[in-house]
Amino acid sequence: MKTLIANALIIPMDREGHFVVGDIGLDGPAIAFVGKKDPSFTADRVIDAQGYIALPSLYNSHTHLAMGLMRNYKDNEPTLQAWLNEIFPIENKLVPEDILVSSRIGIIEALQSGTGFFHDMYFKAEATAQAVKESGMRAKPGLTLFGDLADSQERLKRWDAKVLPLIDDPITYSIAPHAVYTCSKETLRFAHDAAKERGVPLHIHLSETEKENSDCLFEHRKTPLQYLIDLNFFDGVSAFLAHCVHLSEEDRKLLKDLPAAVVHNPSSNLKLASGIAPVATYLEQGIPVLLGTDGASSNNNLNLIEEMHLAALLGRLSSKDGLPLKPYQVLEMATSSAAKAFGIKGGMLQAGFESDLILINTKKAHLAPLNDPFSALVYSVQGSDVEYLFSRGELLLEKGRLTRFDLPSSIEAINDAWADIKQR
Amino acid sequence: MKTLIANALIIPMDREGHFVVGDIGLDGPAIAFVGKKDPSFTADRVIDAQGYIALPSLYNSHTHLAMGLMRNYKDNEPTLQAWLNEIFPIENKLVPEDILVSSRIGIIEALQSGTGFFHDMYFKAEATAQAVKESGMRAKPGLTLFGDLADSQERLKRWDAKVLPLIDDPITYSIAPHAVYTCSKETLRFAHDAAKERGVPLHIHLSETEKENSDCLFEHRKTPLQYLIDLNFFDGVSAFLAHCVHLSEEDRKLLKDLPAAVVHNPSSNLKLASGIAPVATYLEQGIPVLLGTDGASSNNNLNLIEEMHLAALLGRLSSKDGLPLKPYQVLEMATSSAAKAFGIKGGMLQAGFESDLILINTKKAHLAPLNDPFSALVYSVQGSDVEYLFSRGELLLEKGRLTRFDLPSSIEAINDAWADIKQR
Repeated sequence: MKTLIANALIIPMDREGHFVVGDIGLDGPAIAFVGKKDPSFTADRVIDAQGYIALPSLYNSHTHLAMGLMRNYKDNEPTLQAWLNEIFPIENKLVPEDILVSSRIGIIEALQSGTGFFHDMYFKAEATAQAVKESGMRAKPGLTLFGDLADSQERLKRWDAKVLPLIDDPITYSIAPHAVYTCSKETLRFAHDAAKERGVPLHIHLSETEKENSDCLFEHRKTPLQYLIDLNFFDGVSAFLAHCVHLSEEDRKLLKDLPAAVVHNPSSNLKLASGIAPVATYLEQGIPVLLGTDGASSNNNLNLIEEMHLAALLGRLSSKDGLPLKPYQVLEMATSSAAKAFGIKGGMLQAGFESDLILINTKKAHLAPLNDPFSALVYSVQGSDVEYLFSRGELLLEKGRLTRFDLPSSIEAINDAWADIKQR
Repeated sequence: MKTLIANALIIPMDREGHFVVGDIGLDGPAIAFVGKKDPSFTADRVIDAQGYIALPSLYNSHTHLAMGLMRNYKDNEPTLQAWLNEIFPIENKLVPEDILVSSRIGIIEALQSGTGFFHDMYFKAEATAQAVKESGMRAKPGLTLFGDLADSQERLKRWDAKVLPLIDDPITYSIAPHAVYTCSKETLRFAHDAAKERGVPLHIHLSETEKENSDCLFEHRKTPLQYLIDLNFFDGVSAFLAHCVHLSEEDRKLLKDLPAAVVHNPSSNLKLASGIAPVATYLEQGIPVLLGTDGASSNNNLNLIEEMHLAALLGRLSSKDGLPLKPYQVLEMATSSAAKAFGIKGGMLQAGFESDLILINTKKAHLAPLNDPFSALVYSVQGSDVEYLFSRGELLLEKGRLTRFDLPSSIEAINDAWADIKQR
């Protein structure tokens, strides 16, 4: 299938400030050309994109997709720990079918707001992988580890039996030990060794709260990052470090030389009163920064447009003490920088790159006049302005309608599941 | 016209945690009943609101509506002052027709995201008042004063000639001296006296930045609030104080006994790096707090749903040091507290109150399952979920469509105006 997207305002994400009004040709899963129409290109389908911004589809680099089940549930607890005390008893009751219906709803929300890839950390991941397969989008579920070595070995065995058979491009995976405060030293070493052996990255929560830091300092006499470094956690493996709200000066110096990226989750960090990660400073110091929503029960959405908006606003506040985050940097966090970190030839609109892109309708009151399209994308655009999403050349969202999912029955299924869970 | 809204999830905003599933009857501009249908009520029109939340329409208590013209224009300046240096030369070129088309677009955005009232501060306000008249919504434009007494006298004369004839319920007005750093002492006194004489409130920017405070302390040996108090600014007049990011302990003690409300503008305060107003603390101290978007060029939207979301998230962060802001408190800031402060019998759904309300479609992926509707409203709902808006019983937004405005031609008009302004 060859698709011509005509007359879009194209933001290729190949260099700061660059945009062009023109055409994009998609030849199945790969972009054929960007900008000036290749005269030899014969389209099977033409989309008139006048008044639309074409942007790479967005990367959600840290989430717990199926937690949408518990969205807006007992979420007025003042701290991460108090809230987890409400969430864990529910999670203990979940069966794979719950995770499946919740993953479907999460995927629908993600697609409807422009997200084409998510990096997950949750249990019973075979259900999430199945939902991803149904959806046509990209994802990287994580083998989530907690507790001691025996438990981790058991989880790995279960993963290899149930999830691994579903892992097939564009579904890849990572090994996701939950955090330094929930995993034993042996589990952290085991996670590293498994990731290294399998050639997959690691995914962990790191320095999310001051309490995590102070507990780790008390127990191990090291910051969480330095504790991981001493366990050889980063040896020959790349890692995605969610949150990093509280990195010490020494941590930052060490981090920039590690094969690791910080994943900024600004909504969740505010909502759980964890703090504001100084990501403009991290970028200035040479540390890669990506963007995530975290789970919808601590956000409470899976909407990266909203997350870009918040990251941009919070990044401006930091200009009092340092450099403000620029709109283009926020866009990079959600597109090109993420694709690079995950090893996907996407996140940019260029010939030969993956046909993963979104079209955003700018014919809206809140985008008139459009003025600077980079500012408009991070400060004014709404998730609901995303009307088209291509994943590997396939339209998963077309004029705002889902092509593979039925919204009303998906909502009914999650409502039924939730009613049932509360009865258990 | 009698309207029956059937089977809604009604949030009356009459007490914390209260909601009911039932019907609402609107008898023209007044609510006839809420909850259980009055059997004697014969509706001319029935709206099936199953799956919708009914909420009072929202109050935007501080904005510069027509500044949407400059939305996303040169907005990457690091401070309020640096950005104003870019904005003022454009503003000097504006004619009333520019203000008119921009006000229309601002009103459309406001209606589409659930706002039924806005409190404005901008010049050439006859054009804004005209747009409000066309719209059917409520508003309170402000006579905006800058500079010295002669200039203010001139502006008042102009106001009385051009704007006053358009002031007719539901359009009221306030007197809006811009700030202590842009108005002479005589202008501030003049503003107070005019407001007192006319029985209208005052509207001023206050303690928005640290620089405003330190300049005022240097020049007058007082904080901006204490400077105003000493000018008798609050004598017999109520006042709306926009921002109040940096109030001293003494200011807070004084403020709670004044006939004044703080207007919190969290997006603008982040975007201009002004800071985060500790509004949970203000509320705890007995100071009324309302919510505003500020102008769209420092936000960059006029979307109170988005503003509630940010206020709620930032209000959680404050729980590290004090009380977190609760979702219900955020809703009060945007509805019942605002109506009370502006002297409007609205902001609540109760028999006898104004027929000003919105219906929010909850049949969305990001609202499934709904769980706590108060959390859902502040953390998950999107502006685009607002599908109906009633103002004094008239539907201004119906199934997401504007009843009084044409969106494409309104967008064309503002784009044409902006192209023309840049040529001047």
